[in-house]
Parts: sequence; C-alpha cells; structure tokens
Amino acid sequence: MANEKKLVEQITSMEDDFAQWYTDVVKKAELMGYSSVKGCMIFKPAGYAIWENIQNELDRRFKETGVENVYMPMFIPESLLQREKDHVEGFAPEVAWVTMGGLNTLQERLCVRPTSETLFCDFYKDEIQSYRDLPKVYNQWCSVVRWEKETRPFLRSREFLWQEGHTAHATAEEAVERTEQMLNLYADFCEQVLAIPVVKGKKTDKEKFAGAEATYTIEALMHDGKALQSGTSHNFGDGFAKAFGIQYTDKDNKLKYVHQTSWGMTTRLIGAVIMVHGDNSGLVLPPAIAPTQVMVVPIMQKKEGVLDKAYEIKDMLSKFRVKIDATDKNPGFKRAEQEMRGIPVRVEIGPRDIENNEAIIARRDTGEKITVSIDELEAKVGEILANMQVEMLERARAHREAHTYTATNYDEFKEIIANKPGFVKAMWCGEQACEDKVKEETTATSRCMPFEQEQISDVCVCCGKPAKAMVYWGKAY
Amino acid sequence: MANEKKLVEQITSMEDDFAQWYTDVVKKAELMGYSSVKGCMIFKPAGYAIWENIQNELDRRFKETGVENVYMPMFIPESLLQREKDHVEGFAPEVAWVTMGGLNTLQERLCVRPTSETLFCDFYKDEIQSYRDLPKVYNQWCSVVRWEKETRPFLRSREFLWQEGHTAHATAEEAVERTEQMLNLYADFCEQVLAIPVVKGKKTDKEKFAGAEATYTIEALMHDGKALQSGTSHNFGDGFAKAFGIQYTDKDNKLKYVHQTSWGMTTRLIGAVIMVHGDNSGLVLPPAIAPTQVMVVPIMQKKEGVLDKAYEIKDMLSKFRVKIDATDKNPGFKRAEQEMRGIPVRVEIGPRDIENNEAIIARRDTGEKITVSIDELEAKVGEILANMQVEMLERARAHREAHTYTATNYDEFKEIIANKPGFVKAMWCGEQACEDKVKEETTATSRCMPFEQEQISDVCVCCGKPAKAMVYWGKAY
Repeated sequence: MANEKKLVEQITSMEDDFAQWYTDVVKKAELMGYSSVKGCMIFKPAGYAIWENIQNELDRRFKETGVENVYMPMFIPESLLQREKDHVEGFAPEVAWVTMGGLNTLQERLCVRPTSETLFCDFYKDEIQSYRDLPKVYNQWCSVVRWEKETRPFLRSREFLWQEGHTAHATAEEAVERTEQMLNLYADFCEQVLAIPVVKGKKTDKEKFAGAEATYTIEALMHDGKALQSGTSHNFGDGFAKAFGIQYTDKDNKLKYVHQTSWGMTTRLIGAVIMVHGDNSGLVLPPAIAPTQVMVVPIMQKKEGVLDKAYEIKDMLSKFRVKIDATDKNPGFKRAEQEMRGIPVRVEIGPRDIENNEAIIARRDTGEKITVSIDELEAKVGEILANMQVEMLERARAHREAHTYTATNYDEFKEIIANKPGFVKAMWCGEQACEDKVKEETTATSRCMPFEQEQISDVCVCCGKPAKAMVYWGKAY
Repeated sequence: MANEKKLVEQITSMEDDFAQWYTDVVKKAELMGYSSVKGCMIFKPAGYAIWENIQNELDRRFKETGVENVYMPMFIPESLLQREKDHVEGFAPEVAWVTMGGLNTLQERLCVRPTSETLFCDFYKDEIQSYRDLPKVYNQWCSVVRWEKETRPFLRSREFLWQEGHTAHATAEEAVERTEQMLNLYADFCEQVLAIPVVKGKKTDKEKFAGAEATYTIEALMHDGKALQSGTSHNFGDGFAKAFGIQYTDKDNKLKYVHQTSWGMTTRLIGAVIMVHGDNSGLVLPPAIAPTQVMVVPIMQKKEGVLDKAYEIKDMLSKFRVKIDATDKNPGFKRAEQEMRGIPVRVEIGPRDIENNEAIIARRDTGEKITVSIDELEAKVGEILANMQVEMLERARAHREAHTYTATNYDEFKEIIANKPGFVKAMWCGEQACEDKVKEETTATSRCMPFEQEQISDVCVCCGKPAKAMVYWGKAY
C-alpha cells in the first residue's frame, strides 16, 4: 500500500487550496505537461483523448445542424486584422507576430490567428455573390494564440485548441436564430455530455466580444464557487460585412450586406470538467467523454486462471470503452491510479470471485462497490454508467443551486461576494459605471443577463436607479 | 445545357496541359481557395471533408497499433531547434519566426514548427526515466509551416496539415520494427483506401530526412508520369537521443539511450488522389474517402411524386454517405457538377423510372449507366461502390506498370527520362556524385531503393562502377 499512499498523498485537498488541488490533479492524472515555451502546454494522451471525445460529439451535433468544416490559414496579415476597428483594438495587444520567413524579413508582418473572423470575412467577400450562396455555415477545428501574461493549464494558455464557427446569412433574423441555435447546442452539450449545468444569457456591452453586436454565453459554476465562461456565440449583425464589403445580390436584385455570427468552445472545457466533478481522489470523468469508461483489474493475477478470466471479462464488456490493467503494480496502487484518472467504473475480479461467478463493480463518483453475477455484468455496468452520467449532472446542479444567491442592495451584495463563493443574482441599471464599480470593489464581474429573467427588485443593486435587467454576478476564471 | 457546358468548358484537358488541368480541377471541384497570405491555402468544405475521411481512417489504423494522440505547442524556441545539427541545417532556412508577443520583442525568437522532433525529444527527456516508460508511441494531428518559395495547392504550401508520429523505444530493433510497421501501414492505406499503388523503399542518404539514420518512403506515380512522395517513416537510431540526452534505466540497471522514429502523411495525399484518378470531367474520388458516395438526382422534379420518391430513395440508401440534389439547377448541370466533384455514384429517378419501379445508376469512373429495379438498388449501389474501389486501384496499378521502364546504360536512361514520363528502374553505385549528375542532367531524382530489389545489371547506370542497389528514378512533385 506504500505506492498507493504516495500517489494520493501528493494531491492537496481541495478544501485546503483549490488552485493547488487543480494543478495537482492536472499533473497526477497526466493530462498535461509544461513545454519549453512559456505559457504553452503539452496535451498528454489522457488529456488529448478527452478533447477527442469532446470534438467527436460536438462535431456530430454541429453537422446535424448543417455545419461544414473548413480550414483557414493560421496567419493573418496585419492590414487584414486592422479592417474592423473594435476587433483589432480587442486583439492586437495580445497576438504573436511573425516578422521573418526563412532568412528574410517579411514586407508585412503576420499575426498568428487569435480568432479568425477577419480571415473568414476576407474569404466570404469573394465567395458570396448571390442569395444562392447563402447561408454559409462553416466551422474549423484549430489552435489559436493569445499572448496572455498569466496562464493556467486548460483555462488560459498562450496557445489553445478550439472550434470556431463563422456563418453568413441573408437576413438579420437568420443570424440571430443561428446565434441562439448554437448557444442552445453548447448548453445541451455541456449538460448532456459533460454533465455540467449552465446559465444561458447575454453578455453586457462591457463583456461582449470585440466587434460583436451581441454576445451570448453559457456560464458554469466550478466547485470552488467561481464562474467559468464555457462557450460563446456572437451575433455580428452587418458590422463586419460593412467593414469587409461582403455583399450579395438578393432575389429582388438589390445589393445587400450579409449578417454574420461566430461561436466557439475551447479546451478550457477540460478545466471545467476537472473543477466541477473532481474530488480529493482526483479526476472524475462523465462516462460520455471518459476515454476509458471501464477498467478491469485482476486481483492476485498470478494465480492460475485469473488473468484469463479478466481478459474474458474485458471482451465481455467490449461495447464500452474498456481496458485492462494487467501490469505488475499492486491492486491498491491500481485503484488509486484509476481513481486519480477519473475512470468511471472499475471491475475487479479475483480467485474467489471466479469461484462464485461474480465480479466487483466500483463506481468512481460515489465510491459505491457492488458484487454482481458475471452473467449480469454487462447490463449492470451499462446501468451504472448511465446513472452516473445523470447523477453527476444532478449533483452539479444541486451544488450550483446551493451556491446561487440573491441580493437586493449593495451591502448585501458585497457581503455575499466576500463570504459566499457562487453566483449572485441582482438587478442592474444597464450602465457600465456600475459594472466597473462592482468589479473594482468586489472583483466580481457581470457573467450574463440570463434569458430567464426574474424581477428581484425594481432598482439597480449598485446605484439604486431603475433596473433594466437581472444579472448573474460572480468571480470568474 | 448552357450551364453544363460552361462548367466543363473551363477545365483544360489533361493531355494539353496537366498542370493547368490540376489547378482547374482543384478550383472547379471547390476543394480549395487562395488566401490573402501568399502561399497559404484555404481548405473549402469539399477539400476538408476528404481530409477528415483520410484522418478518420488513418487514425483508426494508428490506434490499432497502439498509437496515442497528443498535442504539442506550435512554437519551437530557436535554441531547441538548434540542438541536433543536421536537423537545424535542414529546416532553419525555411521556417517562419515569431519575434514579438503582444507589444514586446521576445527575448528568444520562436519558430512555427516545421516538424516537431525537437519538441518531442524535449518532452521525452523528462517523461522517460525507466524501461517501464517505454515504448512511447505518440502522434499528433496539426498544421506545420515551411516557408516555401514556390507553392501549389495541396502539393506544396507554406502551411499544410499532417500527422506526425514520434516514438521512443528501448532497443534499436524495436525502432526499426516501428519504422517498417508504419511504412507498411501507410502503403496499405494508400492502396486500400486511396486506391493508389505505391513503391515501398528506402531513401538514399542524399534524399533522407534531416537528422535521420534511415528514411523509408512510399512513392506513387501520378497520371502525368511524375512521382509523388506520399508518406515517409524515419528511423533516428539514437542520434536525437544523444543530442537531447534521452536516457532510461534498463532492467540491468544501466543507463541507455532510447531509439526513436518519426513518420508522417500530409494533405498532399489529396493532390495524389486528384492526379492519380482524375479525368477530363474532373475529380474521381475512391468511394472509401468520398465525402458523398451517392448523389440522388430527381429528373423532372416538379412533376408530382418525383421529389417524394427521390427522398425515399435517399433514405433507402442511408447506409452509404448519400445526398440529394433537389436544387432548381437543370439535370445536365447537376450531372456535370457531380462529375466535377468526383462523386462515385449518381442515382437518377424520373417519372418514367417511377412508373417502372426503376432507377438509373451512373458510375463516375467508367461512365457506365445501368437501369435497375428499385428493389435491388441498395445492393447494386453497394456492389458498384465496392467494384469501383477495387478497379480504381487496378487501373492505377496498370498505369504505373505501363509507365515503369528499365535502363541498363546512361544513354538509354537519359532517353527514357526525356521522352517517357514514368519511373525508371536502374542500378546505382551508391555514390551521391551519380545522383547529383543525374539530377543536373535529367532533372530526375532517386525516388527510393525499393525493398523488392532486382538485379537489372551489375553496374551503375551512371558511372559504370559496380552497382550496390536498384533505384527507382523519376521526375517528382
């Protein structure tokens, strides 16, 4: 048991220091490594496999709504980035610049894409001539670079992986519809696949995307009570179209500007999974995205027949993503390791179990262990995985509800922000001055104006003037 | 029929000008577009979907051999790139350099990865301590940048997409084995999936990868008789391990260097598919990678019942990647467009067919059309797709055989290279001087020393000294 202890010992408890716990889990579950380039990370197999599952499932859902994948260059000429005024102001300070190609200095420097609106606009300008060319509903899976000063694994790094969808439509209504459709798709994906409940809403002008008319967001609550923006969907109206001259001839033979959207989700979702579901034994993965859903562990595997039976059980469970740990590590170490890695279900089989035609199923999130007949094993494992997926979402939702507060005046608001980690629902007058004041005095930011509005009071929680909207506030990653 | 003509009219015939034919197909089949960054291309939906199918199939095959996917940063610090002498000499002249992050000049410039051996080595140096940590069989799917002066769609561009596998092994034998295993996997993939026959062999020292002990290659012959290097697998021995200090403690408690390999395939495979299978009506896609395998075309679709029946047929064929073209374009235009895009099978259904409970199947590669009962449609389409996949490979193989020549003396060699596009098999003394001479005088290069050696003569085709190996020579892309 020495090894087992050592493995777990090295995780800080989340109650003692959540940030350190997070870093420990990322490291001990072998999700990522640091690279020799400051702020850039290495996705190790266990981390990248989660991303592959996220990609597969999201991509399938995208394609059902008519999305087509493309790939744009990773470089943007400086003059192109500057075409839309708000956009360049938002991104120019944090991009990496390529100034030399081979041995020659470039005539115009190129930035490594921080996001690709400008490239898609430049492309659409030529591709779209007629109403027949619309809509364009394109997406790309790629990496982007933002020269952040402070970085954290998965949550903020100088290079990260994501998908960015970019669409062009004939009418403003269609653009609004697509913006909402993708936000709903993101929310469903988070809840059904990642087992993470989210609040859907609109960003305030202060928090919206550089160049957008409106930014919709889904906000999730982490175990420590901090908010994580988990996906955004932007409606650009015809702002970019005007800046780039993207016009089409409509059925009435008139030249019109297109209406555009963009929407993205990133590898920070892996960070969300860690921080919503993880515990003091390590990672806990929702079965839907767990690279390994079931690990078979032979007990006393040197005894004749045990390993054979274990492999037989592995084959029996082949409808799941199943592996066997037949290494010579001791069972205690194997258990601790698999818990650390968040594998949803462990099936143990030893000599006595074989005698009784039984196996033990251990469930990662609850720690529950049951003994079942081998004849029922497949059905039982399927049932446990399905239950776990549902109950992880319920548990996360209950945690969020227990950490969502309401404030009707500023003293109350400040008191909650200072002492109770979580979301605070409060009314807002619509002025940025109040957002700025709240941020300065409490470090909380407006997360979103939820689509499901409630009339908590009639006045702004900060200034007391008439309220325009209810806002979710919180400290954020 | 005016539209139909217009579509086809714009393709140059391949016999008149193969290069222009190629560019025309790439453009008219809407595979790619040019971007505002010189030398970088845009993968449009039809082009990217082919790449997705290539990725899915290759990735599945990789994983069957134990490959795990990871993701490394896109940047390499200059000092890291310089660690292995031959490697840096091979790549430094053609990389793009990032010199600024945000508003600040970087202390050390970073190159955008042209390939990631150095990053993997830097990673393995820390990851590998003991024989228990071996082998490492990692791969990544990403884009790389090489600042080429002359570019051509898919074949050579400043940024391209690829996979790069990087492995580390305990012994030299295991590394050789993996190098060969991946080359064989590549060859099988090309033949079975892309329907492209390849010659497997070893590169000469002059043509091998910068830093490799040996480079294995698969070489394909395009329709115009030029060779295309279609995949490479490198054995590094312990060269990189020594340069980067990647050592492990073996079972005998001694410190040893690992042995490494790397292997890659790129989006140039799409170029190979175009140039091996295409014809004067456009692209011809092997069914295994065709994004759309079957296109249903309603004839006289405004007549009552036709569209309904066409959709019914589409549903009936749902085990294939099937689409319906229900646009208001005329049938002639639809046919020409689908031929241009290389869709393997077209199913036409009109009022008279419906009356007879029949449909027409048109096969893209042979142009063959048959009328079949709707009851047999699914089976017949399946059969045609399977036959097409096999026969496309046979046809390509026959073309290669017909364009592979043998030369036993230099005059003969020069005559063939000058007048007969294709491969020339000829003996070689093993000296680079002869390769240099051949290249200078004929523009042909040594493609590979095939694993299947033949003793065509005893002397080098160029200098007449004793021969060491038979070489495939050819003009290459």
